[in-house]
Amino acid sequence: MDIKKLGFEELENLCGKIRTKIVEVVSHNGGHLSSNMGAVELIVAMHYVFDVKNDPFIFDVSHQSYAHKLLTDRWENFDTLRQKDGISGYTKPSESPYDYFIAGHSSTSLSLALGAAKAIRLKGEEGRRIPVALIGDGAMSAGIAYEALNELGDRKYPVVIILNDNEMSISKPIGAISKYLSQMMAGRFYQKFKRKVEQILDYLPESATYMAKRFEDGFKLITPGMLFEELGLEYIGPVDGHDLRALSHTFLTAKKLAKPVIVHAQTIKGKGYIKAEGQFEKWHGVSPFNIESGEPVNSEKDKKSATTLFSDALLELAREHKNVVGVTAAMPSGTGLNRLISEFPERFWDVAIAEQHAVTSMCAMAKEGFKPFVTIYSTFLQRAYDQIIHDAAIMNLSVVFAIDRAGIVGEDGETHQGAFDISYLNVIPNMTIFAPRDEIGMKHAVEFGYNYSGVCAFRYPRNSFLPCNGFESSSFKYGTGEILKKGESEKLFIGFGNGVGRALLCAKLINEDISVVDLRFVKPFDKELLRKLVKKYKKWYIFSDSAKRGGVGEILSGFLAGEGIKDVTITSFEYPDAFIQHGNTVDIEETLGLLPYQLAERIIKK
Amino acid sequence: MDIKKLGFEELENLCGKIRTKIVEVVSHNGGHLSSNMGAVELIVAMHYVFDVKNDPFIFDVSHQSYAHKLLTDRWENFDTLRQKDGISGYTKPSESPYDYFIAGHSSTSLSLALGAAKAIRLKGEEGRRIPVALIGDGAMSAGIAYEALNELGDRKYPVVIILNDNEMSISKPIGAISKYLSQMMAGRFYQKFKRKVEQILDYLPESATYMAKRFEDGFKLITPGMLFEELGLEYIGPVDGHDLRALSHTFLTAKKLAKPVIVHAQTIKGKGYIKAEGQFEKWHGVSPFNIESGEPVNSEKDKKSATTLFSDALLELAREHKNVVGVTAAMPSGTGLNRLISEFPERFWDVAIAEQHAVTSMCAMAKEGFKPFVTIYSTFLQRAYDQIIHDAAIMNLSVVFAIDRAGIVGEDGETHQGAFDISYLNVIPNMTIFAPRDEIGMKHAVEFGYNYSGVCAFRYPRNSFLPCNGFESSSFKYGTGEILKKGESEKLFIGFGNGVGRALLCAKLINEDISVVDLRFVKPFDKELLRKLVKKYKKWYIFSDSAKRGGVGEILSGFLAGEGIKDVTITSFEYPDAFIQHGNTVDIEETLGLLPYQLAERIIKK
Repeated sequence: MDIKKLGFEELENLCGKIRTKIVEVVSHNGGHLSSNMGAVELIVAMHYVFDVKNDPFIFDVSHQSYAHKLLTDRWENFDTLRQKDGISGYTKPSESPYDYFIAGHSSTSLSLALGAAKAIRLKGEEGRRIPVALIGDGAMSAGIAYEALNELGDRKYPVVIILNDNEMSISKPIGAISKYLSQMMAGRFYQKFKRKVEQILDYLPESATYMAKRFEDGFKLITPGMLFEELGLEYIGPVDGHDLRALSHTFLTAKKLAKPVIVHAQTIKGKGYIKAEGQFEKWHGVSPFNIESGEPVNSEKDKKSATTLFSDALLELAREHKNVVGVTAAMPSGTGLNRLISEFPERFWDVAIAEQHAVTSMCAMAKEGFKPFVTIYSTFLQRAYDQIIHDAAIMNLSVVFAIDRAGIVGEDGETHQGAFDISYLNVIPNMTIFAPRDEIGMKHAVEFGYNYSGVCAFRYPRNSFLPCNGFESSSFKYGTGEILKKGESEKLFIGFGNGVGRALLCAKLINEDISVVDLRFVKPFDKELLRKLVKKYKKWYIFSDSAKRGGVGEILSGFLAGEGIKDVTITSFEYPDAFIQHGNTVDIEETLGLLPYQLAERIIKK
Repeated sequence: MDIKKLGFEELENLCGKIRTKIVEVVSHNGGHLSSNMGAVELIVAMHYVFDVKNDPFIFDVSHQSYAHKLLTDRWENFDTLRQKDGISGYTKPSESPYDYFIAGHSSTSLSLALGAAKAIRLKGEEGRRIPVALIGDGAMSAGIAYEALNELGDRKYPVVIILNDNEMSISKPIGAISKYLSQMMAGRFYQKFKRKVEQILDYLPESATYMAKRFEDGFKLITPGMLFEELGLEYIGPVDGHDLRALSHTFLTAKKLAKPVIVHAQTIKGKGYIKAEGQFEKWHGVSPFNIESGEPVNSEKDKKSATTLFSDALLELAREHKNVVGVTAAMPSGTGLNRLISEFPERFWDVAIAEQHAVTSMCAMAKEGFKPFVTIYSTFLQRAYDQIIHDAAIMNLSVVFAIDRAGIVGEDGETHQGAFDISYLNVIPNMTIFAPRDEIGMKHAVEFGYNYSGVCAFRYPRNSFLPCNGFESSSFKYGTGEILKKGESEKLFIGFGNGVGRALLCAKLINEDISVVDLRFVKPFDKELLRKLVKKYKKWYIFSDSAKRGGVGEILSGFLAGEGIKDVTITSFEYPDAFIQHGNTVDIEETLGLLPYQLAERIIKK
């Protein structure tokens, strides 16, 4: 379909069809609803004004790119959205030549646009190609976005930045930049500015009143985008982000400027699906739901998710101890910190998408004697790696990293898998790493974190723990593991975190009396216990939801080598050295051969 | 000394004494000269107005904190600056209770100040304590600084931020924020604003002239700090950063505001040592020099540094191939990229202290068919960890990471050691990791990087390579190692990068016919070669300038375990699991027992 040939009425109809399709598919498959509903006109206008075959279309986070996918040869397959081997929930060049770049983490689009602009200039294609980036107001809080603006405003490569301002991002907007934007909208910035002007006018003769009035009117032309203009960027807006005519006109103007331009578009998140409109976090990423009622289709959850368990435990701890504080980087309900923020707004903070700042600011709180819980998903914690090392670990401050979404996260796929945290944290001196295996274990983990003096991290899966029936956790004791089951077989299953449940399930499927150990701590691990186990058990199998490279298996192999133990073999059932695709978690684990029955088969055959 | 009791004349004398002491010690020991000379009055005024025993004094990067050290019980020991067991070149709480926080990486001070302010509020100490952060204009380019401003401007905790604006940071200032600051200085921002106002005035009646003139004068009060004010911070300045009276007055005003305030102070870098004044990068971090002539004392370098070799090789490559581009994050001469930027300003960029943006923008260039060399020190690359994974590795783009300062860096110490890169990169799927061992090897490494399709990284030491006389490198072949010396002993020395030279030196000291292998690639390593070596050589020793955890030794142990090879022992001479202190590199290696003669002794005794 060449939408460039359509009239505005036809385009409006097209937007309606796109919305219907999105609601239909997301209600079945789950996915990002409100961001996609809000961005339909923006994306249609992008395709109308720019050339997707030629201009780099860069979608920040790209969770709002469904309309783009529907416009580029993926209408038919769209009902496979987020399913294994189906359409990804994010842009993905291997899926379509129209997806310029992969994105699943926030705020990379401006850097990408600038890089593309540099390439375009070097190739002599300026004037024929221009990068266009679509970024939400929420993504503007992250440092990398600012780093890119800082170079862009200085070197002035032609780039069109569409700022999709729905005043909410995932959750309620946080931060000065967000306030600044909404103040522009509400005219509050202008009002504030006006007050300043009036203060000056007080020092001027009274006759100035008429003049001043005229002058103020003039300011409306100057003030709105001033922050961006001061950084060296052109600013156009605000423009109604659901008005195709206005958008097309504005995009064309921006394109012709051949400079770095910010087009500030105001949209309504969830636009077109009445239950989602104007809602904050609830309709951001959704599970399958009934279109009429808006209710989730499967209230599958008999068991509490690990996140809820964490939230419960931290809430209890915070009620008991006043020095417990905590932070989330724009994932209040995703991490369960919302309940803490709501009950203790003076002690728990959402600092917006700003993982680096989240970590470092909590390090100062630890220095002051508080006990900060830094609650970030495994994949997003990568964004604060240097802060963990430089600000938390070198001084060995008592900061607790609560790492949610460790292991396979399912439908969000390769950009979101929590595979690497053990490997990248293990190399950090002073770091302690542990993991709960079950519901009660989460409570113990939170308590251990609270009582431990020094930097530590514990990890837990998305959704609920695999069952460890009959092996309820006791308290954590620094650096010690726990024998759950002593058997006569020479096989020993060593689990870590959610891997313990996997080990237990797998052991049940094998007709042998197999021992199962919960390692509990991977740094430092229980050398004494392992030295004992070495004597009797010669075949060790490692169960952990983590990458093989630098993971639990390699760590224990290193130990055996260092000890000169030669008669024990280690087989690790961690993740292979590859990015893991999207799809239902069970489907993905099946593909990787990690379901308990598959592991049992592999062990028996061996 | 209680400087609060001194008069301004006495304080000025004190500043003179501090300067003399700094020049004297740095000329002997090396260190950061110009930043410290420029900040003397700022720091004296900080101590005069604020209470170092009570208020958190937070020094960004802290390479400008010498005056603070001299004022807090370290005058006598200051001649041990940067020497092993001596005074650190950075703030360090374990050295002094007056050093609030460690800092060696840039731009963390605002997050720390905000965290401290949150703690102060919770403790009910507001009004009695206030965090004061000293940050250079160069540090304002990094994302984390902006992330902190974004929360600070919103939540408005009382914090005094002293912006030390010398318009240069380490090298020439880059970026819009830096331009913005210097425009404020030069009145250019005001001029630009005035032009805008005039454009509006054109639409007003002519009688407005007088009014407008008066009005413009008023703007001087409004405009300078507007960017910060728009972000919700108070702004005071610019103030002369060498005028103690003005500084004290301004700091006191800022303190009393009990809000987040930026005090914008203008200083001259190198102030007081005539040879350094107004110089850019040259006098930032210096080796020992003669005070009279300004010339370095030891021109020790017979051998080219690895950085120079890299720079030579990349220059040659860039001359030959137009698609070679590259980036540095504010370390143009430190990385040797200055020569590239100077010869090809349209293809090589300094993007300021902005490692995240540096990586991601180059990923887009790779997507467009260019061959970017991202040149960052090992320790600073930690700041772009997620970008390496999310933007380079998932799409397996042809980005080459040239990792300078791998291994022990010497006097800069624990915040700067290049210990972790192998471990944190090895877990990333698609990543290839290799290393040159000698001068000619650097040329081959650059060439291999250019020709390799996919993401790759190579590392090299600060200073020059250890000698590998008689074993000159050949070209790199993907995933293959090289046998340098075949011996009859069952001992096998496996070196990686600069570790190869260490292995050769060590082998010479042992009266045995020892084999030496250069691994060359640690990911993927040469399994075929290792499988052959396993047959004859049963005692493997690993030489690599990297952390043991997740390092070369553990990687090879994992391999042996996976292969079921049980009769080979591995001993790794990599770094222990601890942060490594500052001092002359040889002294530090001696402490770690890593000098060739020490290693030889350990091997013989075993």
